[in-house]
Amino acid sequence: MVSDRFSPISWKTGELTLLDQRSLPRKKTFLKITTSNETISAIREMAVRGAPAIAITGVFGLALGAKSKSGEVSPNDLKNLLASVMESRPTAVNLSYALKEAEDRVKHSLNWEEVSVIWEKLALELMQNDLSDNLSLGKNGLSLFSESKDEIHIVTHCNTGALATAGHGTALGVIRSLRDAGKKVIVYADETRPFLQGSRLTVFEMMEEGIECYIITDGMSGWLFNNRKIDAVLVGCDRVAANGDTANKIGTYTLAISAKQHGVPFYVCATKDSFDLKLETGSQIPIEMRREEEVTRFDFLKDGNGEIFVPEGMTAPVGARALNPSFDITPSSFIKNFITEFGCFPPGEIKTRLKK
Amino acid sequence: MVSDRFSPISWKTGELTLLDQRSLPRKKTFLKITTSNETISAIREMAVRGAPAIAITGVFGLALGAKSKSGEVSPNDLKNLLASVMESRPTAVNLSYALKEAEDRVKHSLNWEEVSVIWEKLALELMQNDLSDNLSLGKNGLSLFSESKDEIHIVTHCNTGALATAGHGTALGVIRSLRDAGKKVIVYADETRPFLQGSRLTVFEMMEEGIECYIITDGMSGWLFNNRKIDAVLVGCDRVAANGDTANKIGTYTLAISAKQHGVPFYVCATKDSFDLKLETGSQIPIEMRREEEVTRFDFLKDGNGEIFVPEGMTAPVGARALNPSFDITPSSFIKNFITEFGCFPPGEIKTRLKK
Repeated sequence: MVSDRFSPISWKTGELTLLDQRSLPRKKTFLKITTSNETISAIREMAVRGAPAIAITGVFGLALGAKSKSGEVSPNDLKNLLASVMESRPTAVNLSYALKEAEDRVKHSLNWEEVSVIWEKLALELMQNDLSDNLSLGKNGLSLFSESKDEIHIVTHCNTGALATAGHGTALGVIRSLRDAGKKVIVYADETRPFLQGSRLTVFEMMEEGIECYIITDGMSGWLFNNRKIDAVLVGCDRVAANGDTANKIGTYTLAISAKQHGVPFYVCATKDSFDLKLETGSQIPIEMRREEEVTRFDFLKDGNGEIFVPEGMTAPVGARALNPSFDITPSSFIKNFITEFGCFPPGEIKTRLKK
Repeated sequence: MVSDRFSPISWKTGELTLLDQRSLPRKKTFLKITTSNETISAIREMAVRGAPAIAITGVFGLALGAKSKSGEVSPNDLKNLLASVMESRPTAVNLSYALKEAEDRVKHSLNWEEVSVIWEKLALELMQNDLSDNLSLGKNGLSLFSESKDEIHIVTHCNTGALATAGHGTALGVIRSLRDAGKKVIVYADETRPFLQGSRLTVFEMMEEGIECYIITDGMSGWLFNNRKIDAVLVGCDRVAANGDTANKIGTYTLAISAKQHGVPFYVCATKDSFDLKLETGSQIPIEMRREEEVTRFDFLKDGNGEIFVPEGMTAPVGARALNPSFDITPSSFIKNFITEFGCFPPGEIKTRLKK
């Protein structure tokens, strides 16, 4: 079941503790956070990442921001606080929904103390719901593998596990559920350059679970599909448009093209909060461009206390240029099914499924 | 024109000097090599890489091996020396051709001194021919871009430049020739995990040439094709079967799939020595599997004098598993044209073109 060892977010009133995912797997460093600005930095610099985990962290950040204020709520201050958290990362939609809910819940609040309590309660609720949604999502995913033999080979991208969520995970949650259902699962994890969420985080989770897992580089999928019998690709998502176009970690789309070429089914694991029906297609999803150094060096990761940029970390000549889109859009035509906490369905059913 | 700064191989009788490409771009380290065993290690450990450069280096290694012996040639010793060099890397065919030629040329030689002189001469010939072939290949490539506007956007993979050859390069040779012909070329270089030949070597060459170049990670090609107007993909090769199936650095096939999905023409740059008509299809090409540590860490590179494995270089948990095929096979159906020193032609023409 869910392992507490992975919990990336823990809370006691007035203090948010984040497992700093930038230093994994080398060491477990924890960030103690007591202000909204520290929360925003932690999200922006990817100490915490994964769309559901970002949303939960963001609301705890609001609670910390409210706690630092006193007296009557000024609508302007409230708006600024919400906006500052909203701007931390633009692509995932979960944060946006969570902040909208946070705003709605304090419409009639008179003082900051009250607001802080309401937001703390909301963040804790979000955590609990995310965990229970992921457990349902994982169970629903089992139906897609009911005809598979006892050994199931799955390719995944980025990290969609307990580290990216409140627990269990989305794509890794399905893998955990398959294992819990008695299947032998063999996972191939894209290393997921530039931030290496695959080799640093997914493999870490799989090893702690005792699930057989092999890292591949992001260019190996074509070779892999031709040389191993792969049953499915399972990925998470940061935002899904009404037509099913899906924003997810850079590299997802290339993997989807490669899977389609080889007839391997491509599944997107998503909770309700990943769908954004306001957007008709993926072209409307904003794509975050991050700093070039994440590509031109390997030691961009921070060390808890500060940067550990050292000359030995350069993988390119000084002054080399790079492109660093943090996400890409996989068109709905590449996606066989969405796996959600409310069932599995193809992209064409999104609008009807989400109206229920 | 060709820059001497890049020459990866230089020779004076009895001593081979290799630019150690594992320490680029951090520093320029040169290996002084005086024995065939040192030559074999340099090839195996990728101090020198690129199919043409490996072939030339291998024959210099033979010359060094012969020089260390004296007296009458024993057929058994000759065979063992040839076999030891042949086993250094299995996928590229150029080395195999060069060693066959080396064997043929000493059929009637009586003593090792004579053999050493013949092999030295052969290696120098191979160097000269490779350079002149690359210059012709580059010029031939121009015809494919005759209708392109003045600004040409090219994606490439691995390193196919002066560092991989005796000079000018194959795919990078075409890029140099386009620039020499007055075109503005913009290059997107796959970083090419795990060994990073793209970000370490290709970008290094492009910067020294003043050619605009952006590194992308190996998973970004789908995003790139959707977001930039790309004119062509140009890659090199390690072995081409009679039907056009092409072995090249791992990641090439995934890039080819992605290019095809977006209608971008995919060109393989090859000299005559890359074609292996003995093999009907790519499935017969041996694929070298390399050690997992190249994937699970970033600091597998050596430092001239020895390993520089340090704990900070781990990108995966200790004990993590990885797959590390060093090459993949791109089926001929993905290749629009081969660009060679004897013209440009589609895969279907290989057999007739090579009979001439």
